[in-house]
Amino acid sequence: DYSLKVMDHFSNPRNMGSIENSDGVGEVGNAKCGDIMKIYLKVENDRIADVKFQTFGCGAAIASSSMATEMIKGKTLEEAWKLSNKAVAEALDGLPPIKMHCSMLAEEAIHEAINDYLKKK
Amino acid sequence: DYSLKVMDHFSNPRNMGSIENSDGVGEVGNAKCGDIMKIYLKVENDRIADVKFQTFGCGAAIASSSMATEMIKGKTLEEAWKLSNKAVAEALDGLPPIKMHCSMLAEEAIHEAINDYLKKK
Ligand code: FES
Repeated sequence: DYSLKVMDHFSNPRNMGSIENSDGVGEVGNAKCGDIMKIYLKVENDRIADVKFQTFGCGAAIASSSMATEMIKGKTLEEAWKLSNKAVAEALDGLPPIKMHCSMLAEEAIHEAINDYLKKK
Repeated sequence: DYSLKVMDHFSNPRNMGSIENSDGVGEVGNAKCGDIMKIYLKVENDRIADVKFQTFGCGAAIASSSMATEMIKGKTLEEAWKLSNKAVAEALDGLPPIKMHCSMLAEEAIHEAINDYLKKK
């Protein structure tokens, strides 16, 4: 079953939504389940000033994106790039193995959003 | 991509939540993705007086449960039993093939909840 932290971030997700005039956007799809994740970044002085996510994915995708966005807020782009879905799952006190692929969505969308920012710059 | 009806029922789900002192509860899991669906029924004179759902599932599971609960509200138990996930998907103007299994959650949970009601009676 799901940890209390997963249930907390699922029932009360942090940073859900979009950012107008964002500096970078990343959108990825999950081949395994067909779900989509979108990450919006606001960057200031090479740091993540703000971040929001939108998803059609399941509770595990919502909880891990909520946690992942909390973990990269205020961090440098380099630090944010290094955040792995494993670290996110650990911060959530674990995810069922069948749900690990859901946490990949946030990691990949963060990478896409950082790439998008660097490309635009 | 998703139809306007899917996006509407996903962004603004009908009948989400639980019913205190419900007359029947059905809970099912999805072997394919590990998600859970729970349906609560209030029954009066053999009709579904009220119905609510809770899920950890993805946007397609939310949209199809929202639509399915709308479709069985006020119906007899027999009519509700006959609601198929295919009919729900059609009412939503279709679901991507990879997402059809998500709509099974609502159909199965409705069956479980009706069985639970009949058992308790
Ligand atoms: S099952 Fe698709 S994101 Fe979890």
